[in-house]
Amino acid sequence: MRDATGPGSLSALRLANRERLLLALAGGDAVSQAELARLTGLAPATVSGLVRDLVEAGELLVRQGVANGRRSRLVERAPARQRYGIGIDLGRTHVKVVAGGDPGEVLAAAAGDLPGGPRPDTLLDVVGELAAAVRKEAGLAADQVDGVAVGVPAPVDPATGAVTETAILPALVGFPLRDEVSALLGRPVVVENDANLGALALSRRAAGGAPGAVVFVKVGSGIGAGVAVDGRLLRGDAGSAGEIGHLALDPSLSVVCRCGRRGCLETVGSAESVRTALSSALQRELGLAEVLALIGDGHPVAVHVLEDAGELLGRALGWLAMIVNPAEIALGGPLIAAGDAWLRPVRQGFRRAVLPGVAARTRVTISPLGEDTEAVGALVASLAVPVQSGH
Amino acid sequence: MRDATGPGSLSALRLANRERLLLALAGGDAVSQAELARLTGLAPATVSGLVRDLVEAGELLVRQGVANGRRSRLVERAPARQRYGIGIDLGRTHVKVVAGGDPGEVLAAAAGDLPGGPRPDTLLDVVGELAAAVRKEAGLAADQVDGVAVGVPAPVDPATGAVTETAILPALVGFPLRDEVSALLGRPVVVENDANLGALALSRRAAGGAPGAVVFVKVGSGIGAGVAVDGRLLRGDAGSAGEIGHLALDPSLSVVCRCGRRGCLETVGSAESVRTALSSALQRELGLAEVLALIGDGHPVAVHVLEDAGELLGRALGWLAMIVNPAEIALGGPLIAAGDAWLRPVRQGFRRAVLPGVAARTRVTISPLGEDTEAVGALVASLAVPVQSGH
Repeated sequence: MRDATGPGSLSALRLANRERLLLALAGGDAVSQAELARLTGLAPATVSGLVRDLVEAGELLVRQGVANGRRSRLVERAPARQRYGIGIDLGRTHVKVVAGGDPGEVLAAAAGDLPGGPRPDTLLDVVGELAAAVRKEAGLAADQVDGVAVGVPAPVDPATGAVTETAILPALVGFPLRDEVSALLGRPVVVENDANLGALALSRRAAGGAPGAVVFVKVGSGIGAGVAVDGRLLRGDAGSAGEIGHLALDPSLSVVCRCGRRGCLETVGSAESVRTALSSALQRELGLAEVLALIGDGHPVAVHVLEDAGELLGRALGWLAMIVNPAEIALGGPLIAAGDAWLRPVRQGFRRAVLPGVAARTRVTISPLGEDTEAVGALVASLAVPVQSGH
Repeated sequence: MRDATGPGSLSALRLANRERLLLALAGGDAVSQAELARLTGLAPATVSGLVRDLVEAGELLVRQGVANGRRSRLVERAPARQRYGIGIDLGRTHVKVVAGGDPGEVLAAAAGDLPGGPRPDTLLDVVGELAAAVRKEAGLAADQVDGVAVGVPAPVDPATGAVTETAILPALVGFPLRDEVSALLGRPVVVENDANLGALALSRRAAGGAPGAVVFVKVGSGIGAGVAVDGRLLRGDAGSAGEIGHLALDPSLSVVCRCGRRGCLETVGSAESVRTALSSALQRELGLAEVLALIGDGHPVAVHVLEDAGELLGRALGWLAMIVNPAEIALGGPLIAAGDAWLRPVRQGFRRAVLPGVAARTRVTISPLGEDTEAVGALVASLAVPVQSGH
């Protein structure tokens, strides 16, 4: 006997038959069962059994109609059901939640604070409240939400959905984030690095354009890059692909990073590093909003500090480009508000760090999705969450 | 009418039918046509038409046998035809050519010099001679060779098979290498970066193990890395993914690289840089063989120079690992002859350049395929060259 689960097994053949029948109806026409048998080469009994199963599964519709001048039962594809999802973007101090539908259209959005950062003891309350709010605002019942995706500013183990790197987001290491959010919201959940989600959002936008690698770089308190190659995320063995914040960039090696090493990009190229450097230069503690206001006003000290940070970030992006050779690198995070004052030194540092052929071809831009890039990516990912039962 | 090329077209359905029939025979049993119709759900007339076509295409065999106690014609899968290929590894001064068969088994190998480097005017003579020699030694007729793959130590445009980066292998820029080798040998040809081929060879070896990224690093006159993710090469937008030889590694920025910039890894971490540094330290011009002999003898100056180079290479591989997060990084090129004297400082530099989670999980090794890694990769790629006509 054949192995019931092998490639030649009956269930594999039945599955292939289903696909084959759906393929024959992909054109959108309504077709009689006799015509279906002719088109597919399947025996009439096979066709009628399959049609019965597929109508039950909601994939096909049967209606009365006319074929070859005679009234008969016609079979056609059921319209694709609209999928809905919730995307959650967890930051170091904030959380943004959006609800939306295919293909990544945001219907409602809300944001909240995470006092003390994303901690297991407070996180779920805030997320539960915001998720319920956006779902209702989007007009969705709880069971209309097909999936939820959570973005976190840390490497994520692709297998377990847990934060892996103790040096980056220690409060969440060991916390079963995926399962806890799934229990909270009663829906299937995926957890993904936030920069990866940004890359997914941009890659989705680029669909139809040339294939290749798209990089999204989130520059906040830390710095992380997401890389999508032909629409698939590059996650890496431990989920830590794209962790460029800990590349050794500062030649003076003056600042000790939270990872214990010196010279990490995030100590000299992040939004937080710009804030602390400018606070130090102006000898008073500034908030990031003040920093951005000073840059906007063209304050020469603020502009200089931003240029130093941008140039070093650009150099690291050059290294990334020499390794991954993407077609596009898009920037995100709060410094995008500084516009060209930031983009110019980033491009300058980039150009000097790469071979001429790479400099000429790689587009370095501010993300066209702006500060919503990660949340839109979470929504895109939520719509692709595998359905866990029933279908 | 349906569009003849659309997903629901007759040709798409016929193709799906073929696959379906082959699927039903994947278990390896010989099956009667009546049984095939039952197993697949296809109409008996469809089955017999398909069987006729597939026997003609060499995919199926029909023989007399007994089914359900009665003599009948039984259908079974034809044994897969052995594929053969030729792999060509072009170096800066040498060329290595191998002939072999699936799944990458080398049947014959030969090597030759490329005086003045790989130049259009001399290259084809050498390649033609060596390819004919290994083909005959492997006992293959010219038309038994399914494909040829050529590895070059430079970025390659994936679309045209031409060398793209003027700074790296100027003599071959603009030369239609793929078409010229194809015209020379009369077989379909692919051109690929040599480090990419090494990654392909290692990725093939790893098949059956855990999926993920595998990196091969070729350290010769220059330094290039090949990255295979789940068995697929990461080529990049301009074919220059993995060009780590031009990452700025030397903090003193003392040597000007052939690319015009200062501090490139290849000026401080390549085999050539070890040779020139040691020549300078010992105040006489050494060949690479002499350098390796001195290292093998434990000459303290030679060992020190090698350690400096290894540590900087390791640091660059750390950057690569922070961006790609591979499961394995394997080293190739002439310095593998130095063994642990080289591997130890490379691992040391690597460990200090990455986050603890990456340091703990990434295997940094000398390629288990040794100095044949790129040529075996070329053979693997030659066996996957798409057949251009007939089938």
